[in-house]
This record gives sequence, structure tokens and C-alpha cells, in this order.
Amino acid sequence: MEIIGERINGMFKDIREGIKNQDKKPIQQWAVKQTENGAAWLDINTGANAEDQVATMKWLVNTVQEVVDTPLSLDSTNYDVIEESLKICKSPAMINSCHADRHKIERVFPMAVKYNARVIGLAMSEDSGIPKNADNRIALAMELVAAADEFGLPLEDLYIDPLLLPINVAQDHAVEAMETLRQIKFLSDPAPKTVVGLSNTSQRCANRNLLNRTMIAMLMACGLDSAIADACDDELMETAATARIIMNKEIYCDSYIELYKTGKYLIKV
Amino acid sequence: MEIIGERINGMFKDIREGIKNQDKKPIQQWAVKQTENGAAWLDINTGANAEDQVATMKWLVNTVQEVVDTPLSLDSTNYDVIEESLKICKSPAMINSCHADRHKIERVFPMAVKYNARVIGLAMSEDSGIPKNADNRIALAMELVAAADEFGLPLEDLYIDPLLLPINVAQDHAVEAMETLRQIKFLSDPAPKTVVGLSNTSQRCANRNLLNRTMIAMLMACGLDSAIADACDDELMETAATARIIMNKEIYCDSYIELYKTGKYLIKV
Repeated sequence: MEIIGERINGMFKDIREGIKNQDKKPIQQWAVKQTENGAAWLDINTGANAEDQVATMKWLVNTVQEVVDTPLSLDSTNYDVIEESLKICKSPAMINSCHADRHKIERVFPMAVKYNARVIGLAMSEDSGIPKNADNRIALAMELVAAADEFGLPLEDLYIDPLLLPINVAQDHAVEAMETLRQIKFLSDPAPKTVVGLSNTSQRCANRNLLNRTMIAMLMACGLDSAIADACDDELMETAATARIIMNKEIYCDSYIELYKTGKYLIKV
Repeated sequence: MEIIGERINGMFKDIREGIKNQDKKPIQQWAVKQTENGAAWLDINTGANAEDQVATMKWLVNTVQEVVDTPLSLDSTNYDVIEESLKICKSPAMINSCHADRHKIERVFPMAVKYNARVIGLAMSEDSGIPKNADNRIALAMELVAAADEFGLPLEDLYIDPLLLPINVAQDHAVEAMETLRQIKFLSDPAPKTVVGLSNTSQRCANRNLLNRTMIAMLMACGLDSAIADACDDELMETAATARIIMNKEIYCDSYIELYKTGKYLIKV
């Protein structure tokens, strides 16, 4: 389980103000803090307010790379922003994200191959939205798998997101997402990886952290490989470490939580 | 998710001494406490030390029934002990447990039908032990399902246990148990119920409660219906309540944990 730290995002006030004032401090503090708490990737999102998206994203990338080597997930709906940022990433990055629509795939997949980047592919179409059931999500996931093959993106570099919605408004979606995760692992050999935006599940709910950590354990039982999540939620990180042990992805030892957070797995599957 | 409270068991010192001194207090305290914390059933086990097993089990049953109406899970390897106790249970009880061996099935299933009791059927044979993989556990689960049909036990009164082992000594078993749970739900229509002895998974491990609650969430994603567990572990009960919400077994509301503990579900699937 790789956690993609969600915190460097212009929707958070401290990051938004850091961007506005060109103050590196809050950005770098979160980069270090998330990495130290076990984030394997750092998601970078300028937020909607930044005027020059390209300049802002590049500034964030450089700011983060000054203090950590953690690879970056470039989170934008503007692919020019992502492409300009890919050019300055010191290690292979992740593109967050690509809908299962042909015109998006044609823009994103060749760019990913060119820059040796990974792709988060959404099991939804921009036009028709999130399918209600697992079968239709799997059909879109299959489009993404076929595109990886067509454009030469290694399947292990494709992370398919079955899409999570807030449990208090779309309670029937979680079981569909779980079933989608299970089926994704049968789409190809090697199978694509899987990812979710975990915090979506608990938006405007009571017990947010409890919902998030219970959800991640359940999704991991269905084949979840990674999650964009709050890497500084200790109980979430402990749950993820424990679920890895239960899934037999690391050898049990009494200090498995500490090992997970350092990324120094005894085995890594 | 129905929690079967594990605490009234002669292996615990306070219960053992209560039995020895014919002191009802510790037994009745645990009966009330587990029920108030959301246990749907109470497991009753005399422990190995009790001299007269029949008299001890009957005393425990009566002692518990003086203070709560919670139905009982009669936990013994001696079926005469169970049968004598079934006669005095005020509400239909659960028989814990029956191996998937013909001579055990022939003793237990007719007794369950006679006393309108439920049966925990183990996906293992007494002679050959716990199968290493899911396929062989499912083959034994199928024997139990066929026996239910043969002896007239309603399938929803059969609780199949895929068997959990301590994660620090048998780490590869958990994924087999999960796969067994998934397949059990396809064995018949209506499907049998499922149950585990949750605390087995964390015996002699660090982070016992964390392992237990992470495991229950993962197993619930695979179709677990009930667990013999520590009903007084608040975090475990909150995780179980949350996993029920995620599985869409109850309608979300902000106070879902409290509703779960009272057994007053908005819907019950």
C-alpha cells in the first residue's frame, strides 16, 4: 500500500496563502511531514485560485524538491500544466488523472510514456459521469488497459481509480467500488495497479477518520494498491500497515508499523 | 454484523474463580456489560478446569439469563453438555461448534433442529485439521451446507467459520480465509451465514486490538456476518458499525455507531 499524501493542495488555506505570498515554508513543512509519516508519493495541486497555473505548479514542484526526494503526483485538469511540470520532476512522476475518454487518453498516455510517468486512470467518462455499477466501471477500466497496451505504457504504471463518493449521499457506491477493484486485477497480466481518493468517502460525514481507515482496510481486502490520503493521520497509516500484514504483503514482525512508515519493507510485493 | 461476546469463558481468571466459588457477580457483570456495548450474542464456555461440565454450563446459562435476554452461544466440545444446556435456554441458542466430520454432523445437526438452535460449522475436519487453502475449506463448507439440507436445518441458521490462525505464525492463512468467505456466499441460496473467532488472529502479537479491528473490516468486505470477539473493545465495535455502513447494510446517519450498539438498525439485511 502506497499512500499518496494529499496535503499540498491549494484548497487548504495554508497552502493557498503560501502560493499567494510565494512563501515556501508551509509547502516544505508538509512535504517533510508527510514523507516522514510514510507517504510514498506527494500529490501536488495548485487549487483553483492560482492565476498562472503553469508557473504555480512548477514553483510548487521546485519548492517540494528542495526538501524531499519523494516522487510527485501532479494533480491538475490542465494537461499543459502537467506536461511543463513533468519536465522538471527529478524522479518519475504520476499524472493525476485521466478520464476513460478517447481524447483525454490520446493526450495523456503518450505524455506519460515520453516522461516515464505513471497515470491515474479514472473508471469514468467525463461526459457521462461515474457509472452506477461495477460492470460499467470495469468496461471503462478495460478501455484504459487497452490504451496502455496501445500507447506502450507499462501496465504496472497504470493506476485505475474505481471512484469513491461520499458515503452519506451515495451509500450504494462503496460496494460497487469494491467489486470494481476485485475485477480490475483480472483485466490483464500483469494487472494494472489500483488507487482511490480516500477522503472523498467521508466528505461532510461524522467520524471522518474512522470512515477513512475502515474503508482503506476494506478496499485493501479487495485489491487496493494505493490511496491519495492524509498521510499524517496516524491511525490511518497504522491501519494500512496492518492490512498489508494481513494480506501477507510483508512478513509480520512486532515493529511492522515503524517499518511501513520508513518504506523499508521486509518484502515488497 | 453480529458480535458474539467472548468474555464469559473459564479461561479468563475472573470467570474461572466465579465458577469455582459459585459467585455470580463477575459472570453477570460481563453479561450486562457486553450486552450494553452491543453484543448480539453471548458465548458461554466453562473452560477446561470445571469438574462437572454439565452442571457448570447449566449454572452459567441460568446465571446469565437472570440478568439479560441476550441469546447464548453454547461453547463446548462435549455435546451432552450442549444438549442439557439447550433445554434450559430461554431463547434459541447457538451451538459452538461442529467440525465438518460426519460423526459430528450426525450428532449436532439433529440436535440443532430439535431445539431450534443455530450451528457454527467449522470448515475443517477434526482428523486432518485446517486446510491450507480456500478450495479445501470450501469443500468442507459444502459438506456442512449439504448436511443442513439433509437434516432440515435452515441455511440461515448455519454459520460457517473459515478459521483464523494467529497472523504471526500462519500469515498466509488470512487471505485464504477471506477467499473462503467470498465463496461461501455462492454455496447456496439462501447462503449460509459466516462467523470467525476474531481474537485468534492476534494471539501473542503486538498491536492486538489494531489487528483485530483491521481484520474484521477486511473480512466484512468479503462477506463476514458475525464474529466471536471482544464486545467491550470500543474501537472494534465502532469499526464493525462503520463497515456495516460502508457495505450499505444500514442507512447512514451521523449517529450510526450508537444505533449499532443498541441493535436498533434502521434497516437490517
